[in-house]
Amino acid sequence: MEKTPYPSNMSEKSTLASWIDQHESEWLDDFFTFLRFQSISSESSFHTEVLQCHDWLVKYLEKIGCTVESWPTTGYPVIFASHLKAGPKKPTLLIYHHYDVQPVDPLEQWVTPPFQPSIRNGEIFARGAQDNKGQCFYVLQALRALQDIYGSFPINIKLCIEGEEEIGSAGLSKILLQKKEDLAADCVAIIDLGLRKAGTPSLTLGIRGIITLDVELTGSSFDLHSGAHGGIAYNPNHALVELLAKMRNEQGKITIPGFYDDVIPLTIEEKTTISFAFDKEEYRQQIGASPTGGEQDYSILERAWIRPTIEINGVYGGYSGEGFKTVIPAKAHAKISCRLVPNQNPDIIGQILTNYFKKQAPPGIDVAVKLHPGKGKAIRVGTHTSCTKAFARAFEEVFQKPCEYMYEGSSIPIAAKLGEIAGGETILLGLGLITDQVHAPNEHFGLDRLKQGTLVIARAIQILSENR
Amino acid sequence: MEKTPYPSNMSEKSTLASWIDQHESEWLDDFFTFLRFQSISSESSFHTEVLQCHDWLVKYLEKIGCTVESWPTTGYPVIFASHLKAGPKKPTLLIYHHYDVQPVDPLEQWVTPPFQPSIRNGEIFARGAQDNKGQCFYVLQALRALQDIYGSFPINIKLCIEGEEEIGSAGLSKILLQKKEDLAADCVAIIDLGLRKAGTPSLTLGIRGIITLDVELTGSSFDLHSGAHGGIAYNPNHALVELLAKMRNEQGKITIPGFYDDVIPLTIEEKTTISFAFDKEEYRQQIGASPTGGEQDYSILERAWIRPTIEINGVYGGYSGEGFKTVIPAKAHAKISCRLVPNQNPDIIGQILTNYFKKQAPPGIDVAVKLHPGKGKAIRVGTHTSCTKAFARAFEEVFQKPCEYMYEGSSIPIAAKLGEIAGGETILLGLGLITDQVHAPNEHFGLDRLKQGTLVIARAIQILSENR
Repeated sequence: MEKTPYPSNMSEKSTLASWIDQHESEWLDDFFTFLRFQSISSESSFHTEVLQCHDWLVKYLEKIGCTVESWPTTGYPVIFASHLKAGPKKPTLLIYHHYDVQPVDPLEQWVTPPFQPSIRNGEIFARGAQDNKGQCFYVLQALRALQDIYGSFPINIKLCIEGEEEIGSAGLSKILLQKKEDLAADCVAIIDLGLRKAGTPSLTLGIRGIITLDVELTGSSFDLHSGAHGGIAYNPNHALVELLAKMRNEQGKITIPGFYDDVIPLTIEEKTTISFAFDKEEYRQQIGASPTGGEQDYSILERAWIRPTIEINGVYGGYSGEGFKTVIPAKAHAKISCRLVPNQNPDIIGQILTNYFKKQAPPGIDVAVKLHPGKGKAIRVGTHTSCTKAFARAFEEVFQKPCEYMYEGSSIPIAAKLGEIAGGETILLGLGLITDQVHAPNEHFGLDRLKQGTLVIARAIQILSENR
Repeated sequence: MEKTPYPSNMSEKSTLASWIDQHESEWLDDFFTFLRFQSISSESSFHTEVLQCHDWLVKYLEKIGCTVESWPTTGYPVIFASHLKAGPKKPTLLIYHHYDVQPVDPLEQWVTPPFQPSIRNGEIFARGAQDNKGQCFYVLQALRALQDIYGSFPINIKLCIEGEEEIGSAGLSKILLQKKEDLAADCVAIIDLGLRKAGTPSLTLGIRGIITLDVELTGSSFDLHSGAHGGIAYNPNHALVELLAKMRNEQGKITIPGFYDDVIPLTIEEKTTISFAFDKEEYRQQIGASPTGGEQDYSILERAWIRPTIEINGVYGGYSGEGFKTVIPAKAHAKISCRLVPNQNPDIIGQILTNYFKKQAPPGIDVAVKLHPGKGKAIRVGTHTSCTKAFARAFEEVFQKPCEYMYEGSSIPIAAKLGEIAGGETILLGLGLITDQVHAPNEHFGLDRLKQGTLVIARAIQILSENR
């Protein structure tokens, strides 16, 4: 047998790999069931479906042998599953997931319905296929495999699976402090992230924070005719585009006073651990546009990973239907999010933005700003923790390549808070790819990655057990 | 009997007024039937309703004694009704109307459903109650009254009622030349306008032209996650607000190169005929906002009547639903209209705007511009024509006040072309008020104005007969 270049317990790995292959049709059925729940947390019409998804997951975890609690919150309940039979001498791993998903619009752009999973070219298409049901599901299969093969887990396992990640984790945030003892862990794994590229084992050493807000501008009491009132009334659509355009200058620099005040530069160690190399042409081919956005005096991955942003996620005012309507609308709206970097405080940035809109609005236009509860700070993770080392080795065993380190532009608002409460080392990982179309039509996740993920998690659990 | 300060045939006026009162319940029933047709020309789902409205109107005109033709067009048919028994020695009046109406969204803001007319405080609420079914209906009642009382009309009457005014009159425009003989008239009355204020008899000496367009910006091939791509991808929403904001400077001056090139100043006579006095506080009370829009170095009514504008009638891109979605949309859209003044050519302005968007778009953003067919030049009308004089006298008789002259910021794209083809004098009038909420939720028109309008039209027809 050829010698593997990476230290690997080939026996364990092949035992696990066989289990995965032998049970494929069974776990694929289960995954499709999980994906069929329309667990869209942001739209109240899906309330029942979100709860049905929760109930299914509770039963699934009980079947794996976990003790499962459903923690009531101000919103959707948090699932807390634990399996502590390894005992106090063994480390405890807390894994975080969410069972809610993003909305599906524009629905007409889905090739197959978002809640009727289907496989094309080895990819499973469905809302949540990656984010986060797919990533959650390979963790569940790793646990099932270990349970099935060995009858137990070599370390203590806790799972915290919430139902409000896509709307800001308000419910979980509020109960964190009172659940401090339950959540205590040596290692907190946030498994909602991605690989640097397909086939490359990767760990994420940092994610950005976030704050989101709605802005509503009001001019007249009712919609006006743009013939009679054009040139007299201040069109809220104009006020809106003016305010939104002025947020950044032509170099992509955010011009809102105070926005960058708390941003700190990367340390030398951070700079040397992470490669900011980026293939522009590959990106263009993947998304159909060149990477021309953001601050022009930073490299592309610096813009995505270590610089804060302001993005207009939605803008709407006036007529958007077929044909034309010569209207000056009474109201115009924007939905805005900022990605934040270490040392930026979401509350302060929210206040800075609110002030900007209130103060800069032209005469005749009223402004209302609503800050959403879904906010969170950025996170940085070190490379030298036993947790990071265990997952890196598991990744290298499975992919047979050196693990690469990266940052990630996305945010998991709850992650920083959860890490603090649990008191252990935080690790950020996942098998997502930038091409998975998460939060967009035709979200998908590879069958190969479901299997690799199952292996990585199962092996990481075994390695964590050996290391202590 | 008190002497009336305005020359008036009191006998004719009171005969007509009695007829109107006696037949009120009958014509109100008819008006409500007219209003119930959902004749929204811009939305294809209402196709059948638009045609049913056309059919009803054809029969109504036949009952009044007109010879009615339905002229096929590329879109909705044009109704042409004529009653030429007055003979060649008597003048011919051509009256223009439209039977189509604007869309009704936002539907939830209507107090009563837009196509179920209802009366509150003497006002009839329905889509089209004023624009243009109400204005058309009092003309029909004037004709019915004259026919009923005198058995005929003292002049030759033609009506041209189209079904595509709200979408730009493309169909009528294309057949105008071939219908030149049918449409020939001494006086062309465009009855789709308003009073300067409630109770003030008014004629409109000018309307603005119009050009409308859709702009679509495209970034990536699909929607992106604003965490992973924020700072890399150029968000089409940002490109859109930047392009739209840059169309005007902080003084409201349009900065698109060439936009004002063909604008000519008012003549001394025009300046002295028209009062540009404006009550800011009254306006604020009427619409709920101060008149702070447009070019700041012009007076308010100059901005509304004699200066061109650019208005964003619709803007939309990304997420607009409940909650939040951290998306960078693939596309962003705007619907834009320009009001034009005499000597500005809609085609040239359309080209100028297209060039602006194409040339100014940032790298990574593709632009598509669609010019709508609904375009038209501005119109100016003189005070000394026999037509203007007859309608001014009719207005003064009915309102017992001096007729005031005004311009109007709105556009009737077909009006300039129709006047040219008919070969006669054009007159612009109507009994609309700025508070009627045309093109907006809760459009309404006064019962009192329906009666006054009927009287004005009937008397104008009689006066035109005397004058020749």
